[in-house]
Amino acid sequence: MRSDALCALLVRRGEAPFRGRWALPGGFVRVSESVDAAAARELVEETGVFGLHLEQLATYGEPRRDPRMRVVSVAYLALAPDLPVPVAGTDAAAASWVPVSEVSTLAFDHARILSDGVERARAKLEYTPLGTEFCGAEFTVAELRRVYEIVWGISLDPRNFHRKVTGVDGLLEATGETTTRDGGRPAALFRRGPATALHPPLVRG
Amino acid sequence: MRSDALCALLVRRGEAPFRGRWALPGGFVRVSESVDAAAARELVEETGVFGLHLEQLATYGEPRRDPRMRVVSVAYLALAPDLPVPVAGTDAAAASWVPVSEVSTLAFDHARILSDGVERARAKLEYTPLGTEFCGAEFTVAELRRVYEIVWGISLDPRNFHRKVTGVDGLLEATGETTTRDGGRPAALFRRGPATALHPPLVRG
Repeated sequence: MRSDALCALLVRRGEAPFRGRWALPGGFVRVSESVDAAAARELVEETGVFGLHLEQLATYGEPRRDPRMRVVSVAYLALAPDLPVPVAGTDAAAASWVPVSEVSTLAFDHARILSDGVERARAKLEYTPLGTEFCGAEFTVAELRRVYEIVWGISLDPRNFHRKVTGVDGLLEATGETTTRDGGRPAALFRRGPATALHPPLVRG
Repeated sequence: MRSDALCALLVRRGEAPFRGRWALPGGFVRVSESVDAAAARELVEETGVFGLHLEQLATYGEPRRDPRMRVVSVAYLALAPDLPVPVAGTDAAAASWVPVSEVSTLAFDHARILSDGVERARAKLEYTPLGTEFCGAEFTVAELRRVYEIVWGISLDPRNFHRKVTGVDGLLEATGETTTRDGGRPAALFRRGPATALHPPLVRG
């Protein structure tokens, strides 16, 4: 999240095909490395970003998705707070955080892959405490709600959200402190609880 | 499920490497077909089973997982009731439903892939109404519990299970009828409700 927008890390292609077009970072697997390792290597080579937990999203294997030859792409997803400004490298002409809502066309079938990734991210907020990782160590329910609103791309009713998140086992722990940093009345400060999955899930909307 | 056991559809390899060893059905993607289409084609060629919804499980891409050459495998999962007895074909010497608990070694890294698939199946029973598809059109809570016990591989407390499943929105609809086919007292008959995801989920155990 940058400037209150859900962003994807994209590169501007420096070579054909789709030269000059935005694309997801990526490249070819070397014969002696695993597919997982190739994903991490290409990410750091093209953007300078490293050390993330990459999870497999899906594999894209339609016959004519790359005009050069038959290419099957294994897509990975990483979701993390406080990521650095990227540094373009190897065959990327530029690398940048781009608000997902402003992405129009991408090279190859990358728009579909990005769309699948965004949907996975949105679902993870329903079922896991991931959203709390995008808040500070201590945060208000309004701050957590803002994370959900940005990722889900919708406005949420404050009272309804408060009732839901405080009803999830182990999601939030009260610190006993309050803050007025939101600019309104004193609001309770929470920290992450021990939950690793949300029961009940925070159904969208 | 066959004879009260969770089973996987395996083939006995007719060719090297791992000749004679049990393996997951599969094969190489043709240059003009999608990876998804290849999975469905190989399944019918090697086992005679067709018409299933195959979902991607994961992609396995370690460098030396196939002794012949570099092979990346995209694994698919299908879960369905009432599947036919398989018919071995092409390079499979035999095809059979094998209880997952009796599977020991498999060719290549297929034991790990099967283990990942079983875990995905177990998780789907927590979050989706999939289990009801393995019951008849009208079923008792005890019959549904048996499905969960078989897939999860554990015994479940009948009262606890009854309380949980009847507390899930839209999972079950009472038919108003009862049956004594379980051999005990008359038990209420249910049919599938409209739920597509379970709220709350049926946490294992």
